[in-house]
Amino acid sequence: MAISALAPEWRISHWENTPQPLSLRALRGRVVLALAFQMLCPGCVSQGLPQAQRARAAFPESDLAVIGLHTVFEHHAAQGSPQALHAFLHEYRIAFPVGIDEQSPRGGVPLTMGMYGMRGTPTVLLIDRAGALQWHQFGHVEDMQLGAAIATLAGRRANAAEAATPTAPGCSADACVLPD
Amino acid sequence: MAISALAPEWRISHWENTPQPLSLRALRGRVVLALAFQMLCPGCVSQGLPQAQRARAAFPESDLAVIGLHTVFEHHAAQGSPQALHAFLHEYRIAFPVGIDEQSPRGGVPLTMGMYGMRGTPTVLLIDRAGALQWHQFGHVEDMQLGAAIATLAGRRANAAEAATPTAPGCSADACVLPD
Amino acid sequence: MAISALAPEWRISHWENTPQPLSLRALRGRVVLALAFQMLCPGCVSQGLPQAQRARAAFPESDLAVIGLHTVFEHHAAQGSPQALHAFLHEYRIAFPVGIDEQSPRGGVPLTMGMYGMRGTPTVLLIDRAGALQWHQFGHVEDMQLGAAIATLAGRRANAAEAATPTAPGCSADACVLPD
Amino acid sequence: MAISALAPEWRISHWENTPQPLSLRALRGRVVLALAFQMLCPGCVSQGLPQAQRARAAFPESDLAVIGLHTVFEHHAAQGSPQALHAFLHEYRIAFPVGIDEQSPRGGVPLTMGMYGMRGTPTVLLIDRAGALQWHQFGHVEDMQLGAAIATLAGRRANAAEAATPTAPGCSADACVLPD
Repeated sequence: MAISALAPEWRISHWENTPQPLSLRALRGRVVLALAFQMLCPGCVSQGLPQAQRARAAFPESDLAVIGLHTVFEHHAAQGSPQALHAFLHEYRIAFPVGIDEQSPRGGVPLTMGMYGMRGTPTVLLIDRAGALQWHQFGHVEDMQLGAAIATLAGRRANAAEAATPTAPGCSADACVLPD
Repeated sequence: MAISALAPEWRISHWENTPQPLSLRALRGRVVLALAFQMLCPGCVSQGLPQAQRARAAFPESDLAVIGLHTVFEHHAAQGSPQALHAFLHEYRIAFPVGIDEQSPRGGVPLTMGMYGMRGTPTVLLIDRAGALQWHQFGHVEDMQLGAAIATLAGRRANAAEAATPTAPGCSADACVLPD
Repeated sequence: MAISALAPEWRISHWENTPQPLSLRALRGRVVLALAFQMLCPGCVSQGLPQAQRARAAFPESDLAVIGLHTVFEHHAAQGSPQALHAFLHEYRIAFPVGIDEQSPRGGVPLTMGMYGMRGTPTVLLIDRAGALQWHQFGHVEDMQLGAAIATLAGRRANAAEAATPTAPGCSADACVLPD
Repeated sequence: MAISALAPEWRISHWENTPQPLSLRALRGRVVLALAFQMLCPGCVSQGLPQAQRARAAFPESDLAVIGLHTVFEHHAAQGSPQALHAFLHEYRIAFPVGIDEQSPRGGVPLTMGMYGMRGTPTVLLIDRAGALQWHQFGHVEDMQLGAAIATLAGRRANAAEAATPTAPGCSADACVLPD
């Protein structure tokens, strides 16, 4: 789904990995990749969060802000507390800022999740430099397409590839190198 | 390595998967992803070729041409013939055009490989719509960065994600879905 | 490490996925694979637990009992409660019995973990039909070796392979089939 | 399929990775894992051959002989020659003995493949110490089940696990280690 309304400001009850709260407004000027996840969502742990980490490594921080939204809609006792999230982020080495989506006083889905009409986790949101929502995708996203979408919004490509290129002549699992 | 000289025309002795020879000149107007590979290069088979197939699926053909270059620099008897390549492409379901890089009469590396100064396989070349070489990378490339580079040159993002989004409430390996 | 002392009875404060507590004594006559894990241990989630599920599927229940031991030695607030474990097992579709290793009144490592001298999670224990500890391995174990060890203790091989064999002539990602 | 007739002697036109031809008779006393494959069979390259290499590493050579059978039934020009196989084995670092299944003078499936009634590649054969065929499986086999079957026939478990166990306190991708 591609859309371009102004992205509504998120509602966060607690932040991890940032010294101060982060508003969408304050992130204007950068592309924002927001990943809505739950720490007990297997697809978030095996796919969504590693992908967000790859995106964070692939683009300069001045171009792309990667933010996690802990949108807990089930198992509140198990995963709803700041301590549970803190332990999870620590063990999975997730270093980007993560906000806990504010629970509604009436129960049900948390506030940010509701405002955006999310259908579950993981959900990827891409917001352009002007604050407009450009992509809202529930479920699996390919790296190729996410990289393309970020670069299109950022107006520039990713960091130069840092991969050490093979040098020993012959074939390894990665490459075949010309003899000297 | 990012460079922007005009990409030299390739030298091809035989084509597969195309009714007629393809020149770089004739591909002007589209971004070109050329993957130099060998059918007996393990890293090409496990990584480079599947990635080229993903790129081909991710972008419209009017924006991106994906081309294989069979740059055989070893085991000529085993992998140098059109029949060997034909059988390989058939079994691996590779449907994009592949040209056999022309062997030099003096032996050694084939002509296109030599002109581009390639150091081995797999090597990715990205050529912009105007025919300038924009990226030359030996070894492993991340999907995130390749998608970003293609989108930057194409000036637009990838195809809309076609992934079927999960719908059954509860968690699967891919996602957790809100209850109805 | 291969050892054959009688395996000490575990100390469990709470069970999931079993109608009644399970003692090692009551499991005599079957081989026991006990996997010590923590729900916030990434290597347990990505490797140890899926492997235990594969072992459970590969051998008849009359030959092999697969048991999880939730040996929480850090982040007690986040992962120490029965509710947290219950939610985790539900979302990861883990159906074999799991016991929470009893916390020591003096803190530190839980009681079963201490008795067995475990050094961390995941740890695999293999106990023979007579109740003797035959294998104690911290960290990653290969499926090939675990399957071999279980079969050796069980005195028989795994279930017959149930894999649907390919039938359509030609090659798929899995196999090449003879023409009819 | 589990069977226990005496395994018929294979018919091999050329051997790689062995100084002299290998007969089933000469391998009596050891369990034999024979993998029928083709170098242009994607499932053989991505799954069957790496699995055979893992089996070879997991069991002592005195207990288990791992043998490849190059059962070419298509693309003879591309993959049927000793040179093609030799190059393939070299690039994929396959070090166990591989025999080329003898082509029939009448064409069609090669002789060993025909004698065993194989339906395609990859096919796993397990032959016990007395020379009886104990397992014949076309398509994918799980490591857990293959390890179990080999151990059952060998009458003993795999090599001691050699995996370096983690030692630095805290969690890595593989394990969580107790603090000192």
